[in-house]
Amino acid sequence: MYIVILAGGSGTRFWPLSRRKTPKQLISVLSGKSMLQRTVERVIPLKPKRIIVVTNSLQAEETARQLREFQKRVRIDVIEEPVGRNTAPAIGLAASIIARYEPEGVMVALPADHYIVGEEEFHDTVMRGKDAALNGYLVTMGIVPTRPETGYGYIEADMAQRGPAGPFPVKRFVEKPPLEKALEYLDSGNFFWNSGMFIWKVDVILDNILTFMPELAASLANLVFSEDIWELVDFNPQIEAIYRDIKGESIDYGVMEKAENVVVIPARFGWSDVGSWNALPEVIGAGACGNVLIKAKHEISLDSSGCMVSGDGKLVALIGVNDMIVVDTGDALLVCAKDRAQDVKRVVEELAKRGLDDYL
Amino acid sequence: MYIVILAGGSGTRFWPLSRRKTPKQLISVLSGKSMLQRTVERVIPLKPKRIIVVTNSLQAEETARQLREFQKRVRIDVIEEPVGRNTAPAIGLAASIIARYEPEGVMVALPADHYIVGEEEFHDTVMRGKDAALNGYLVTMGIVPTRPETGYGYIEADMAQRGPAGPFPVKRFVEKPPLEKALEYLDSGNFFWNSGMFIWKVDVILDNILTFMPELAASLANLVFSEDIWELVDFNPQIEAIYRDIKGESIDYGVMEKAENVVVIPARFGWSDVGSWNALPEVIGAGACGNVLIKAKHEISLDSSGCMVSGDGKLVALIGVNDMIVVDTGDALLVCAKDRAQDVKRVVEELAKRGLDDYL
Repeated sequence: MYIVILAGGSGTRFWPLSRRKTPKQLISVLSGKSMLQRTVERVIPLKPKRIIVVTNSLQAEETARQLREFQKRVRIDVIEEPVGRNTAPAIGLAASIIARYEPEGVMVALPADHYIVGEEEFHDTVMRGKDAALNGYLVTMGIVPTRPETGYGYIEADMAQRGPAGPFPVKRFVEKPPLEKALEYLDSGNFFWNSGMFIWKVDVILDNILTFMPELAASLANLVFSEDIWELVDFNPQIEAIYRDIKGESIDYGVMEKAENVVVIPARFGWSDVGSWNALPEVIGAGACGNVLIKAKHEISLDSSGCMVSGDGKLVALIGVNDMIVVDTGDALLVCAKDRAQDVKRVVEELAKRGLDDYL
Repeated sequence: MYIVILAGGSGTRFWPLSRRKTPKQLISVLSGKSMLQRTVERVIPLKPKRIIVVTNSLQAEETARQLREFQKRVRIDVIEEPVGRNTAPAIGLAASIIARYEPEGVMVALPADHYIVGEEEFHDTVMRGKDAALNGYLVTMGIVPTRPETGYGYIEADMAQRGPAGPFPVKRFVEKPPLEKALEYLDSGNFFWNSGMFIWKVDVILDNILTFMPELAASLANLVFSEDIWELVDFNPQIEAIYRDIKGESIDYGVMEKAENVVVIPARFGWSDVGSWNALPEVIGAGACGNVLIKAKHEISLDSSGCMVSGDGKLVALIGVNDMIVVDTGDALLVCAKDRAQDVKRVVEELAKRGLDDYL
């Protein structure tokens, strides 16, 4: 089994804690470890032959630094994308490399910046997915929904044909629904959250890329491998040449929504894509005062609740404050209404526009 | 003329920017100069014979440090109170010292932490007050109100007897009124904001202390002066002995509300006692986005207004935030609803209760 970790996210939505060079997956929001490090730790018990981490040139140095501690336990290769082109090229590239080494190897593709609780259930889900992948399926992990979440995409499964553990044939992928639809999906029992975690044999995914994304397949066919294909350092100029021409596309839209042999494996572990500051309270759980504080040395709260505060190691005092996001860092301070968390990326855009690059 | 600057405030309401050792009067909220320094600069053109700054032992060192730059232009003596006992003992002590030097000297008593705009008008008001003081009156400066402020005490004047410049006999002192009353006061034209700034001859105030605060007068009578009464350093043990026994009292309640010969001089300079974070916007004026930012390097504001932010030199980003006070410092972060600014002192009390003395 090969693990491919997609770690090229720009993380603008966790600004100012996340920056260009240290996006969400490289910062420790919750503990001493970054989300990337937690992702690697989570897959080591699966005894993968190799781990390939796909990141970009801006983050490569910090990524390599964070992975160093694991190199004795598992071989990890870092591939640098010169520019982000969404998930399809990253997955195609990783699959091409693995295929050269083991054409029928099973590849598990995981985002580096997801929050997961329940390691055993996670391992069990991957192993069930691996079985399905060995049978030639494109497997997506579907999180069993626990609330009518409107912030995630959904997968509708045809659940008539199999036992409760799946895999179930995928009927369709659904964009983030309005609340009414989300309630319907939750009630039906046939819908899962689209986690963006996939399992397949590399020959199967490459066949599908050839079918549905022939341009990407053609670009990938230009890859020239050295004798030892794992000498990935030599790859960079080739990857740059490929990425210069290909267009950005998600593997969901490029392949999964079009392919025939797509199945979903139900996953019951705790999961969040931690898509914005707003998602942290659900992940961490509020404290006694109804607020979520991270990186705070002390908390004093008067009549305040529903707040998410990152305190930069300080004492944090809240008075009459409700549903606010406050993020303090060395050079920037964000104060944001909770229901405006999605607009943090607008601030990042504004910073870029004003040329305030030091804060990006 | 002698200037007495009352600089012993604890400044809990500007926490976390103000601390025990650096209360409001010793910090620079608005510019490079502290409010104490601005107060001293404001009175130097009045050519006082001496300035006496009354502070407490905790703040004495920083107070002396801040005053050093003025010592070439005017003689400033710093008196340390071992413990705060409100304004009456501080004023009685300063008056006793001045009286030994010049029994009929005119003394101007000014808080160190008030914000004043209009230096010329200020000087003019003091000179008018001095004339009244020389006629034996206890003079209080009354700010001509510009809005129905409910956060200040008021002075009702008998305005029938004199021209518009006063002085007017004081009919009564009024506590902070409800809005309805404040509107009435504003309309009547007979009411002034009680600024806590006074002018009198030292023999007159000491006579009145003898009449209305005989215990304080008795304590002060114990002061033994050296040959050079300005060698105030030797004073500390004496002051400590006096302060151990006397009770705390404001000069307003102890003398001004009871004395006969009290007059008010109308003052038309811009004034604020800057009693809480909430008072700063009125003093500074909001920026283009409707927010007041101090100590902020850059501001990015989306749909935010009415906020007061002290940014600790950082970039400050606001998204959908209204009427909030946010104060960032090296070790503490305060987030407070604007209408709860008075409760900042409750946080300070809580800090003391928990023994978090580093933050006081």
